[in-house]
Amino acid sequence: MLRSSAPVASDSPPVLQRILLVALRHLRVARGVNTLNPDALLAQLHWRYAVKKFDPARKIAPELWAALEQSLVLTPSSFGLQPWKFIVITDAAVKQKLVAVSWNQPQPAECSHHVVFAVRKALGENDVDRFLDSIVATRGGSKDALKGYRDMMTGFAGKAAEQGWLREWGVRQLYIALGNFMTSAAVLGVDTCPMEGISPEEYDKILGIEGTEFATVVACAAGYRAADDKYAQLAKVRFPATEIVRHV
Amino acid sequence: MLRSSAPVASDSPPVLQRILLVALRHLRVARGVNTLNPDALLAQLHWRYAVKKFDPARKIAPELWAALEQSLVLTPSSFGLQPWKFIVITDAAVKQKLVAVSWNQPQPAECSHHVVFAVRKALGENDVDRFLDSIVATRGGSKDALKGYRDMMTGFAGKAAEQGWLREWGVRQLYIALGNFMTSAAVLGVDTCPMEGISPEEYDKILGIEGTEFATVVACAAGYRAADDKYAQLAKVRFPATEIVRHV
Repeated sequence: MLRSSAPVASDSPPVLQRILLVALRHLRVARGVNTLNPDALLAQLHWRYAVKKFDPARKIAPELWAALEQSLVLTPSSFGLQPWKFIVITDAAVKQKLVAVSWNQPQPAECSHHVVFAVRKALGENDVDRFLDSIVATRGGSKDALKGYRDMMTGFAGKAAEQGWLREWGVRQLYIALGNFMTSAAVLGVDTCPMEGISPEEYDKILGIEGTEFATVVACAAGYRAADDKYAQLAKVRFPATEIVRHV
Repeated sequence: MLRSSAPVASDSPPVLQRILLVALRHLRVARGVNTLNPDALLAQLHWRYAVKKFDPARKIAPELWAALEQSLVLTPSSFGLQPWKFIVITDAAVKQKLVAVSWNQPQPAECSHHVVFAVRKALGENDVDRFLDSIVATRGGSKDALKGYRDMMTGFAGKAAEQGWLREWGVRQLYIALGNFMTSAAVLGVDTCPMEGISPEEYDKILGIEGTEFATVVACAAGYRAADDKYAQLAKVRFPATEIVRHV
């Protein structure tokens, strides 16, 4: 079951503060302070495209990047298990090296921040326990109270490993992160280019994660389009809703 | 290579109009008319959670839903191939039937719009050609000019089918759509609950797509949280950025 919030642990401590915070958040949303209107969202999703040529001189401002990094951290995942690592590359020499293992596409070098989405290859009981520790640290309560949840997750991971689809389950979660990241960037006015056309094994070597518990899955360059990227001028090609959306 | 825009076809017709539109869009973005500020984005991503209990009385307004449906249509995909179908269920009887094949979770029945993400199981030359027709219809030019692109895609699909990972490639694209959809909903102030805990085969039967070219992958309920969904009050549990983000 895919969900971002784990079951309630009893005895969560700072109840009053939390209620006030949540109430405040509801109020702000109710007033529309933090939301976009539908036209603005669609304008940004139309504005977005897979940038071929970034402007190497334009860097993402630190406060914008901090928000984008948090959007990665906040990505929902199955059981909340977050089977991932995000590697953010701004070092010019490393970025340049990645071009050759990205089908010679220039985006890794020319973008501002190149993000590598790496999956946790296995999911042992220790990983589940680390997650449960994190729940208890955040919400209070005891780990014992989460035993049912623990059993469900270790049972799931065991079955998935046995049947050979645990890693692909993790990869799917990373694609949620990729979708979330591109949309988050678009609503902030930051350009991206998702890149499946890379050599994951060569990425692993260059980033020094070969043989570790993580492996490169996909990358996404972020930054700002060059003024002369001709792809920015092209009309977006999509099948019409009448073909790909069915109403029941 | 994952990208949403296909190569440039020559002779695209309504050039002036397009340039004006693009210029207008750039201006609006430059003025920040359509973008969120970073704090507002993060407020919405914190506000988002996997809703357990929807308010069955609250429906998503038509203009909001239209935008969310467009966000699905605009999802980027590998080569731009859009190997998907989105099934939007508002019929009460069908929604109720889906509960039993969703581990008895009530969200499909209680939400406003229940979205099923279905993958195109195979990708033949006819599918590639349909996509190329769509490029030509949108951008003008001739299909012949896209022959290199066609060869790349059919070569890719053939290899992926032979090696047995074509369907999983498509599923990954659907998870981009899922991530995009949840984030789009969050910035509009609409609640969601991603649901991997479903029986895809039973969904296929209920939706009448068993044996067709599409198959259910994952679902996402959308609507508004019930005032008494206790999960809304819980602090979000995430590993800290220091653990899951690495800077190079």
